[in-house]
Parts: sequence; structure tokens; C-alpha cells
Amino acid sequence: MAFQGYGAAPGGMAQDPIYGYFTAVAGQDGQISADELQRCLTQSGIAGSYKPFSLETCRLMITMLDRDMSNSMGFSEFKELWQSVNGWKNTFASYDRDRSGTVEGHELQQAFSAMGYNLSPQAMSIIMNRYSGQGRIGFDDFMSCCIKLRALTDQFQRRDTTRTGRAEFQFDEFIQVTMNI
Amino acid sequence: MAFQGYGAAPGGMAQDPIYGYFTAVAGQDGQISADELQRCLTQSGIAGSYKPFSLETCRLMITMLDRDMSNSMGFSEFKELWQSVNGWKNTFASYDRDRSGTVEGHELQQAFSAMGYNLSPQAMSIIMNRYSGQGRIGFDDFMSCCIKLRALTDQFQRRDTTRTGRAEFQFDEFIQVTMNI
Repeated sequence: MAFQGYGAAPGGMAQDPIYGYFTAVAGQDGQISADELQRCLTQSGIAGSYKPFSLETCRLMITMLDRDMSNSMGFSEFKELWQSVNGWKNTFASYDRDRSGTVEGHELQQAFSAMGYNLSPQAMSIIMNRYSGQGRIGFDDFMSCCIKLRALTDQFQRRDTTRTGRAEFQFDEFIQVTMNI
Repeated sequence: MAFQGYGAAPGGMAQDPIYGYFTAVAGQDGQISADELQRCLTQSGIAGSYKPFSLETCRLMITMLDRDMSNSMGFSEFKELWQSVNGWKNTFASYDRDRSGTVEGHELQQAFSAMGYNLSPQAMSIIMNRYSGQGRIGFDDFMSCCIKLRALTDQFQRRDTTRTGRAEFQFDEFIQVTMNI
């Protein structure tokens, strides 16, 4: 139900416009699913002049923050997502100088570098091959890449405890990490 | 151009109906991109009564077989894909007994098991969480899972040369493998 529970927002939240976007779709359970998230982000206009996020990207967003494996998202997770999305959007926009809604391969590399990811030309080539069209990468795919890179780096670093840049996986564990993204 | 070069098909191919589907979209360069593949598979009716494949799944199909990193697919790769898709469709259909176009978690586990993947309950739970809706997994997502599982298992086994069920990755290599799927 739209705006259910809005009046009962805990201290200060009622003034938070992000809380308004959230409650408009979250309903009584206070959780949003991937299709509700897609609707919510589209209605909020967070993508600005860029195309709204695909359902696939919204599923990834839920997965990235779904620590309790509920396959849905509460308000605190939504707020964390909002901040990440805004940060990534600003990064994307700073490289999309002609406002075409796309960036080129070398701009993508610069954007990743600015986020702290120093990837080899081989890795960049694989990413461009997988996500680009005509040598350019769109905003929705850029966002998918950012979510995946963050989740994968986090999972890798948990296993690379001595910071050698190498990590060992058991097969089932490898499948758990990679099928989740 | 539709049917370009059809008459010049190498020995026997002109009689192969799969070659007809391929050339109808491949055009003069003899290669198909992800959106052409989507059109081609939809027109061929390979999904039967199931919903046509999403563009995301078609991109994965191209990636899976794109050994020359051209981001497109030639006829021999297309034929290999056709056989895999048909096999997976038959597996899916054998578990989708009520012809709802979806299977449940325990049926998915049985299907994977029949394909030789013995995954833990944790891995199955992650896969269901990521790909299912209301506890059921649709044909397009099932296909995505099959493609990813095959590619990931292949990449893991290449590094687990002594078959201990453990494999080590360098960070950049890990990103190359996982961002490709």
C-alpha cells in the first residue's frame, strides 16, 4: 500500500525525501523487491537524464546489500544503495562529457581507476566486450559493473587475508560467490 | 541482409534448417551479435512455448562461446549453442511437469544434479535467491544459470589441475573470469 506507515516514521525520517520514495513502494512489510526497487528508482528520478535501471540491475542492487538473504531491501539498505548510486552516477557523468549517456573504454578505465580499481588491459577488454555496444558503455551497464566489481573485490579480499593478491576458493564456495553476482 | 550468401553455403549446410535461421540474421559478415541472436532464436521458435530469451541471456550465450573475443558468433559456434540450448530446454521441460514455465528449488537442484553439478544447499539457496521469483525459476533464468555454471566450472577446473576441489586465483584473473559471465 502506498505511503503506509509514513506517519509513523522513526525520528527524523519523515523529513527525509528518500524515505518518501521508499515508503511509496515498500508497503506494510517495510521491504522492497527488485521490481518495486525498479519502480522506486524510476519514480525518484535518480538516474537523471539517463535511461531508468533495468530489472537485472535492480536485482543486482538487492543482492549486493541483501545481508539477511531475504531477497528484499529494508530502508537502511535502501539509503546505503541511494548513496552508492548517486556517487557512481556522478562519476559516470564526469566522464560522459558529451552527455550521450555512454562512455568509451578508456574513460571507463579512468572511472574505475578513480574508484581504486586498477585493472589490466585484459580485464578491461573483457568488461568492454561483455557490456559495451559499439565500443561504448551505457549508464545501466556501468552501474552493473560497479556493483559487481565492488561485491567481487569484497569477496576476494575476505579470502586474501595476508594481502598477497592471491586467494584460494573451494569449488562450492566459488560458485556461491560468483552465482550471486 | 536477410539470406545473404545462403546459396553459397558450404557443403550440406544449405539443407540444414539451423543454417537458415543463422543466415537470416547474420548478414554478409557471417557473424551475429547479441540482439541479432535474440531475434534469431525467437524466430526459430527454439524456446517452444516458453518466453523468448532476454537480451541479457543472449549476451551471456555470445560470451560463453566467444573464443576469439569478437563479441559476435559465427555459424559453428551458433550450432554448438543450438545443441546446448536444446539439451537444457529438454532438461527444464522434464522438471516443469505442469508446463507453468517455471520449476521449483528442489527441481532445479535435481536438474543440476542430472547435469553433473552437485551443489550445496547454501549454493542452491543463493541461486534461488538471485534468480527466482516467488520460489520458482523461469526458463530464461534457468538458461542463464546453465550458461554461467558451465563457464564457471570450466574456469575453475582449469586452475584445479590436481583435482583437489580447490583453486587459486590472482585478483585480476579472478575479475577477468567473473566479470565475463
